[in-house]
Amino acid sequence: MPSISHKGALMPASPIRKLTPFADQAKKQGKKIYHLNIGQPDIQTPEIMLDAVKNIDFKVWAYTASEGTETYRTKLASYYNKLNYGVSASDILVTNGGSEAITIIFQACLNPGEEVIIPEPFYANYNGFACSADIVVKPIMSYIENGFALPSIEEFEKLITEKTKAIAICNPNNPTGYLYSRKELEDLRALCLKYDLYLFSDEAYREFCYDGKEFISPMHLEGLEEHVVVFDTVSKRYSACGARLGCIVTKNKELYQVSLKFAQARLSPPSVAQIAATAAVDTPDSYFEAVSKEYTKRRDVLVAGLNAIEGVFCPNPGGAFYVVARLPIDNADKFCQWMLEEFDYQNETVMMAPATGFYSTEGAGTDEVRLAYVLNETDLKNALVCLEKALEVYPGKTSK
Amino acid sequence: MPSISHKGALMPASPIRKLTPFADQAKKQGKKIYHLNIGQPDIQTPEIMLDAVKNIDFKVWAYTASEGTETYRTKLASYYNKLNYGVSASDILVTNGGSEAITIIFQACLNPGEEVIIPEPFYANYNGFACSADIVVKPIMSYIENGFALPSIEEFEKLITEKTKAIAICNPNNPTGYLYSRKELEDLRALCLKYDLYLFSDEAYREFCYDGKEFISPMHLEGLEEHVVVFDTVSKRYSACGARLGCIVTKNKELYQVSLKFAQARLSPPSVAQIAATAAVDTPDSYFEAVSKEYTKRRDVLVAGLNAIEGVFCPNPGGAFYVVARLPIDNADKFCQWMLEEFDYQNETVMMAPATGFYSTEGAGTDEVRLAYVLNETDLKNALVCLEKALEVYPGKTSK
Ligand SMILES: Cc1ncc(COP(=O)(O)O)c(C=O)c1O
Ligand SMILES: Cc1ncc(COP(=O)(O)O)c(C=O)c1O
Repeated sequence: MPSISHKGALMPASPIRKLTPFADQAKKQGKKIYHLNIGQPDIQTPEIMLDAVKNIDFKVWAYTASEGTETYRTKLASYYNKLNYGVSASDILVTNGGSEAITIIFQACLNPGEEVIIPEPFYANYNGFACSADIVVKPIMSYIENGFALPSIEEFEKLITEKTKAIAICNPNNPTGYLYSRKELEDLRALCLKYDLYLFSDEAYREFCYDGKEFISPMHLEGLEEHVVVFDTVSKRYSACGARLGCIVTKNKELYQVSLKFAQARLSPPSVAQIAATAAVDTPDSYFEAVSKEYTKRRDVLVAGLNAIEGVFCPNPGGAFYVVARLPIDNADKFCQWMLEEFDYQNETVMMAPATGFYSTEGAGTDEVRLAYVLNETDLKNALVCLEKALEVYPGKTSK
Repeated sequence: MPSISHKGALMPASPIRKLTPFADQAKKQGKKIYHLNIGQPDIQTPEIMLDAVKNIDFKVWAYTASEGTETYRTKLASYYNKLNYGVSASDILVTNGGSEAITIIFQACLNPGEEVIIPEPFYANYNGFACSADIVVKPIMSYIENGFALPSIEEFEKLITEKTKAIAICNPNNPTGYLYSRKELEDLRALCLKYDLYLFSDEAYREFCYDGKEFISPMHLEGLEEHVVVFDTVSKRYSACGARLGCIVTKNKELYQVSLKFAQARLSPPSVAQIAATAAVDTPDSYFEAVSKEYTKRRDVLVAGLNAIEGVFCPNPGGAFYVVARLPIDNADKFCQWMLEEFDYQNETVMMAPATGFYSTEGAGTDEVRLAYVLNETDLKNALVCLEKALEVYPGKTSK
């Protein structure tokens, strides 16, 4: 039997899916599970987008240009320019989800063994994309005490070596929900210019900023035209995760041309998704206002509820739809598994993501979990009750 | 300005797109171009498939399982089992086009620097996927004189080294249209068992076999369960290239699990495409019979027409919708460009793909072109007239 590759052996399994067998088992036992573990929103996709799918009128389901259709990219440019990105259609390369945008850019920018610095905890699949591209993620610790704010520039500088090629941020952040300030981005700007580093900005959650806080992109900063690459996706913006449509946005023409070669090899992004996403750009503001109101309410319920539980600490994040909370527990992996395997309250339990999967520093995040507030208020409240009851009886409880 | 990666610099640009600027220029001059250069069929997508898109009835456009939905994989298994592949849903991993199936498998099976032997001429994007995975394609020459039949097993053995990990075939072949015989596949079977090599079978054109010839897959051969991986796609089968839906089929459980980790990192294949492709499995036989009849007619017109031109030789291929023809010319790249830039006959010209892009051996295929018979009979006949007229006046004509 031929052997598999080293990369195949090293490729990390998705930490979010590790607990799936236990969840399946719990369901079989008839337990109701509140799924706060994954970023699949329950929010409805805008009708204008689904209608565009229903109204397709072609006879041949053809490839589009590898970089995406001119129509879609032009429309997307108008969307970005409302946000003052100052881009044109030719700065946008449409991809198979934001995931492919990351894969292409990692390969196009970094040589095997070169490094990208990423504040941790971070989106776990960056590890998979890095493994696939044979590049190295250098984590830089951010801390729950200050809500996972950007680590200081001095800390970044300590990590910069000859191999450092890029800094990547996710803003607003998955898993922490942290929304970076203008000051933090200005600091990163200076750092990237000083060391001539790429600045990757994963903006999957751009639409989800609360409390009237301003969203700042590196695209808003001057002098970074050659350095900034935005990873984007329609997955969360329009609750259209199954469309598999993302894009790379960069004003760096050389990088664009190089990325295009990767895109040409795989021929085309999905065509119906592009038609739908073109329509979606005209989603009325009222949609986003309603969504924002809903998420704000959920966040408030969740954060207040968590902090009301003895020994629990949860910062109040400014964006996305995740929180990372610290629990009075010995081990988050054990606890989350125990919640599914051993615990129920009135035949209900909660599924959460152990935060360990979002840290690459060994031993970090062992008393933290990520919760996605993708359920309605009532379910969230029930989940909170469950969690409180669970912490009362969990054998590995610590006193903090 | 930060530099791009070596891989980015080395990544081959799609040879099929190299001539696009000249085609655009020709169009601007008002020339009509017969596009025989690309594999985008003009055949209509089955109505049953497009109707499934129009009839979507979900409210949230959600991710599916990373390996594809249970429903789709079960349906696909029934499709394969009609062809006697003997597979179950758990042997199928759904991908973003056949392209992603190849990318994942190259990475999962081969270490950087390891080799896959592929008969040339071959599908040009294998080069891109190999560059991306940092693996090496070892071409093995096949020849127009015998219609691009499989090279002898002795020739394969000459190329096998410690680094050889796999053999890849495309059957029926793009670009040659060659359909491998049972004998050729049996020979490959013995070879792969002898040296413990993976056998990758790209079956994008499985449905397109003519003259009553039988399609044989390595899936039909015994004792190769751990060795065979099929790359598949709905792109050509249902003329649904824009759906971006393919799959990996393998009975090798370890390889499946490893491939799944790559699939999990990118979360999900497209959901609407899976709904549509599930419906498409029920496409009536009459659809394929009509398509096959149409392509057979076109092939006959094209092959006969080509061989009727002085100095032109074109074998009669058993499958796909491509032919590779030898022309009495100095240089196919020059000639194809000249056809767009300098030539017209009654204000019409033909766009073809120089075969050089499908060979990786330097200097091979310089007098060959690939033609895709994706136009109707009348257009094909007009294109043939154009080509004949062009060869009469082309300055780089050779006498053969
Ligand atoms: C931070 C972040 N980036 C990228 C992605 C990838 O999204 P997609 O491939 O669905 O566009 C996700 C999905 O959850 C995410 O959370
Ligand atoms: C031989 C072969 N393999 C794979 C592909 C990739 O097809 P897709 O990514 O559209 O499924 C193609 C497309 O032309 C092809 O010709």
